[in-house]
Amino acid sequence: MTPETLLSLLNATPGWAAQAAAADLDDTATLQILSEAAKVAGTTLAPMAARADETGCRVEQGRVRTPEGYGDAFRQMGADGWIASDLGSDLGGMDMPLALHAAASLPMEGAALPFMMLLGSTRAAAHCLAATAPDLAAEWCPKLASGEWAATICISEPDAGSDVGRIRTKAMPAGDGWTVSGTKCWISFGDHDMAERIGHLCLARTGAPEDGTRGLSLFLVADTLDDGTRNGIFVERIEEKLGLHGSPTCVLRFETAEASLIGTPGRGLPALFNMIELMRLQVGVQGAGVAATCATLARDYADDRRQGGRPDAAPVAIASHPDVRRQLWQMEARALIATALVVETAVTLGDAHAGNTEAAALSAFLLPLAKTFGGELGQANADAAIQVLGGAGYTREWPAERHFRDVRITTVYEGTTGMQAQDVLFRRLLKDGPAIRAALLARLDGGSVFPTLLARLDTLVERLSGATPAAQALAADAALRAAWEVVAAGLAERLRAALGQEDALDLWLFGAAARMGVAEASVDWALAVSDR
Amino acid sequence: MTPETLLSLLNATPGWAAQAAAADLDDTATLQILSEAAKVAGTTLAPMAARADETGCRVEQGRVRTPEGYGDAFRQMGADGWIASDLGSDLGGMDMPLALHAAASLPMEGAALPFMMLLGSTRAAAHCLAATAPDLAAEWCPKLASGEWAATICISEPDAGSDVGRIRTKAMPAGDGWTVSGTKCWISFGDHDMAERIGHLCLARTGAPEDGTRGLSLFLVADTLDDGTRNGIFVERIEEKLGLHGSPTCVLRFETAEASLIGTPGRGLPALFNMIELMRLQVGVQGAGVAATCATLARDYADDRRQGGRPDAAPVAIASHPDVRRQLWQMEARALIATALVVETAVTLGDAHAGNTEAAALSAFLLPLAKTFGGELGQANADAAIQVLGGAGYTREWPAERHFRDVRITTVYEGTTGMQAQDVLFRRLLKDGPAIRAALLARLDGGSVFPTLLARLDTLVERLSGATPAAQALAADAALRAAWEVVAAGLAERLRAALGQEDALDLWLFGAAARMGVAEASVDWALAVSDR
Repeated sequence: MTPETLLSLLNATPGWAAQAAAADLDDTATLQILSEAAKVAGTTLAPMAARADETGCRVEQGRVRTPEGYGDAFRQMGADGWIASDLGSDLGGMDMPLALHAAASLPMEGAALPFMMLLGSTRAAAHCLAATAPDLAAEWCPKLASGEWAATICISEPDAGSDVGRIRTKAMPAGDGWTVSGTKCWISFGDHDMAERIGHLCLARTGAPEDGTRGLSLFLVADTLDDGTRNGIFVERIEEKLGLHGSPTCVLRFETAEASLIGTPGRGLPALFNMIELMRLQVGVQGAGVAATCATLARDYADDRRQGGRPDAAPVAIASHPDVRRQLWQMEARALIATALVVETAVTLGDAHAGNTEAAALSAFLLPLAKTFGGELGQANADAAIQVLGGAGYTREWPAERHFRDVRITTVYEGTTGMQAQDVLFRRLLKDGPAIRAALLARLDGGSVFPTLLARLDTLVERLSGATPAAQALAADAALRAAWEVVAAGLAERLRAALGQEDALDLWLFGAAARMGVAEASVDWALAVSDR
Repeated sequence: MTPETLLSLLNATPGWAAQAAAADLDDTATLQILSEAAKVAGTTLAPMAARADETGCRVEQGRVRTPEGYGDAFRQMGADGWIASDLGSDLGGMDMPLALHAAASLPMEGAALPFMMLLGSTRAAAHCLAATAPDLAAEWCPKLASGEWAATICISEPDAGSDVGRIRTKAMPAGDGWTVSGTKCWISFGDHDMAERIGHLCLARTGAPEDGTRGLSLFLVADTLDDGTRNGIFVERIEEKLGLHGSPTCVLRFETAEASLIGTPGRGLPALFNMIELMRLQVGVQGAGVAATCATLARDYADDRRQGGRPDAAPVAIASHPDVRRQLWQMEARALIATALVVETAVTLGDAHAGNTEAAALSAFLLPLAKTFGGELGQANADAAIQVLGGAGYTREWPAERHFRDVRITTVYEGTTGMQAQDVLFRRLLKDGPAIRAALLARLDGGSVFPTLLARLDTLVERLSGATPAAQALAADAALRAAWEVVAAGLAERLRAALGQEDALDLWLFGAAARMGVAEASVDWALAVSDR
């Protein structure tokens, strides 16, 4: 997706103009930022990501070695302000609106999703410290934003993934501070050689096991102590994975590691809230970025590769075969809608952070959609890129298969689709339906498909509100998908009016009502099965 | 899927009883064969496939080295009769009905799809020789069936994949025979160390380039000549791929290699017809096999893995979480329907081979569906297995990610989905609609969803019959999917009546009409876009 298209898409998003004005950004400045991001993605990140996928990461003498170029690229991106551009300038950031951060990240995530995960966790940690621990923030945030230091998020444990109430990693008071002991897993960039110091934001138990999530507190655990010695943190292993070979997913063991409490004891989960929000949005950006990168890859290949056509003439570009054209349109629609989705969510989240309560209700509803369907659209386009490229797409000579492997994680981590569905149905649609409805109408109404689908969503939620909790849980995925069809149709109709691209967007819009029907049928099934 | 379920599914398929009786197979004998196949899959193939994926294949001194155990397993399967069990016993086969061959292959393909590709090409080559070249068949077939020798199919070239009319590999008369020169690519097991001799069935040009496909003839090119010396065949490289690391995909160079003509000059493509048929059916079996294996994998994991539930109690098996249960049901439905689809196609193809013209029309329609949707259902279940297993599914500790990589090839090779769609719309539905309709009604009518969808397919084909060729080509994928919904609904209703599994199969059936609507909407779009 070109920087110009991204700018048009931002400008078509209600609320962006006000945020841009408040940040003193005109179109020229915004376009320059988007163009720079595309340049970094194309010249530095894309070639590095291809190499990194081949070499992978390894543990040497207890420390993680990352692929060639990683350290330089990370520090350079810090120096150029990309790592935490949306952090306050008092803490080393650039005061960039969240939506512009998301838009600028798109080509970077689409080029090097695994590498970008270190930027994601480092930035999210900086925001968390900024919101909850001013003293630590003053020390850490400028170093994180500059790429001199880095950070991780340590939540999951071998027996506590989504189920954080069962976390067993234990924090004990020690002198003025605390120590943390336990094993954490699925830690992206849990160790590496790209920064001088790594700060682990670690959720640990200060209360009793029976306190569940209320016994959890958040700590900052630095891998190197202030006196330069190593803290008690050990890399157990790097996971061997389908993809993300360019991102070391670590199991870390904390052994009476010195730790600083962040915020209030027992309030570890609330302290993480803002960070989790940013990470989930970023997953959506990852998916949308891959969706756009794969759409471009497939189109370029199809314009170039010649095969078929009249046997008595030279072979023709495969882009001229109708079924290939259809697939390219479908990919283009997915890329546009995924991008619009994460921009919409980021703009709304920005307004919510500024204190707008209607935006807060809407962003809480949009966030699980952005996380889930950003990811699913990225997966669909990576899959479609393999299909358009054919045999070539199945080989490692082309990056389609790498994107296919990397982007598959997006609907798994940071809360599976099943968890997002529970959130959307139980905490959003069933609790906050009217507020969400009003906010959607205010932002997305303008075409003919959206209002029809919104009315059908109302009916669906109404039906589910009278169902048993078991039936509701069985129908949550369907509710998530129904909600998505409403939002996606509104976005597609807006894009069609603002950007054109009728052939591609109509392929999406023509099928929207029928896909809504698939979701409704799943609700019918859930109600029928629960009655048996 | 248990052998008992497979037997029930065979017995629920019209026509199977007669084929079983003709082959002198009662339920006991059939079940014994299915049980033996499951045993080979579980004890020999599954562990070998996991190792083979890690070690892969490599070229050493110009020859391909395959993973440990491959040669022994291939020869043992030959000795036990698995390689060409459906070949005539006069040629070394076991006269097994095609449908039983398909059913017995399911667990093997689900365990070791890459390894099984050598059995697939060897068997298909044996059938091709048996049908077209009696002398060569007498020499080669018994050796192929026993696994002493093996065979490949050489069609694609760097600039002629789907577009076989542009094949440039050249055959020249030489003495009593021929020589072949040119480069062939995408040759599965194009070379290996598992058999004494490899016969390449090679499509080459005997006529002028402007003759297109009519200038093509089929040759048998042995890698070792009768005097024991090597023929002029060289391995250029093995492709590096997303998956299929256990299957060496070769680029082969033929340099004035001695060759025997198979059949009549200029009739190379018709000679391949039966072989392509068998290969396409086998791709469906691969997908269905993976669909079933992944359904079992996910169910076993979900029964075993404990997480969540009331915080004050021990964690519960994740299979008891409603959304996981929904996913398991969905996977079970896909596995059952995919299996029924390939069995249905195999039974019909068996009847067609026996001279039944109604079965011939139906099998020509079912085959692209079996190839495409066997593959898609396998892909969907491999994807779903990763989702159910969560982070674990993304790691190499579990086989879900391997299946996900391996099965992705199924909708690419042996004719992409785009090509299958053209076949279904132009050569089947638009040309042969009434015969297909009658045959479907005779076999699948029995529930309430199937007849409704069949009527909607009629309407859709009627609309398309009046459209321009450009609009038809743009709508071909939608027609393929509409046809599939009809067949799948008929199979699901039959299975529901015969096997039960209501919760799983209803999840499929409740959504069938809405999915038909998605296909219809794509047709609307194709007609609208073509009118612009």
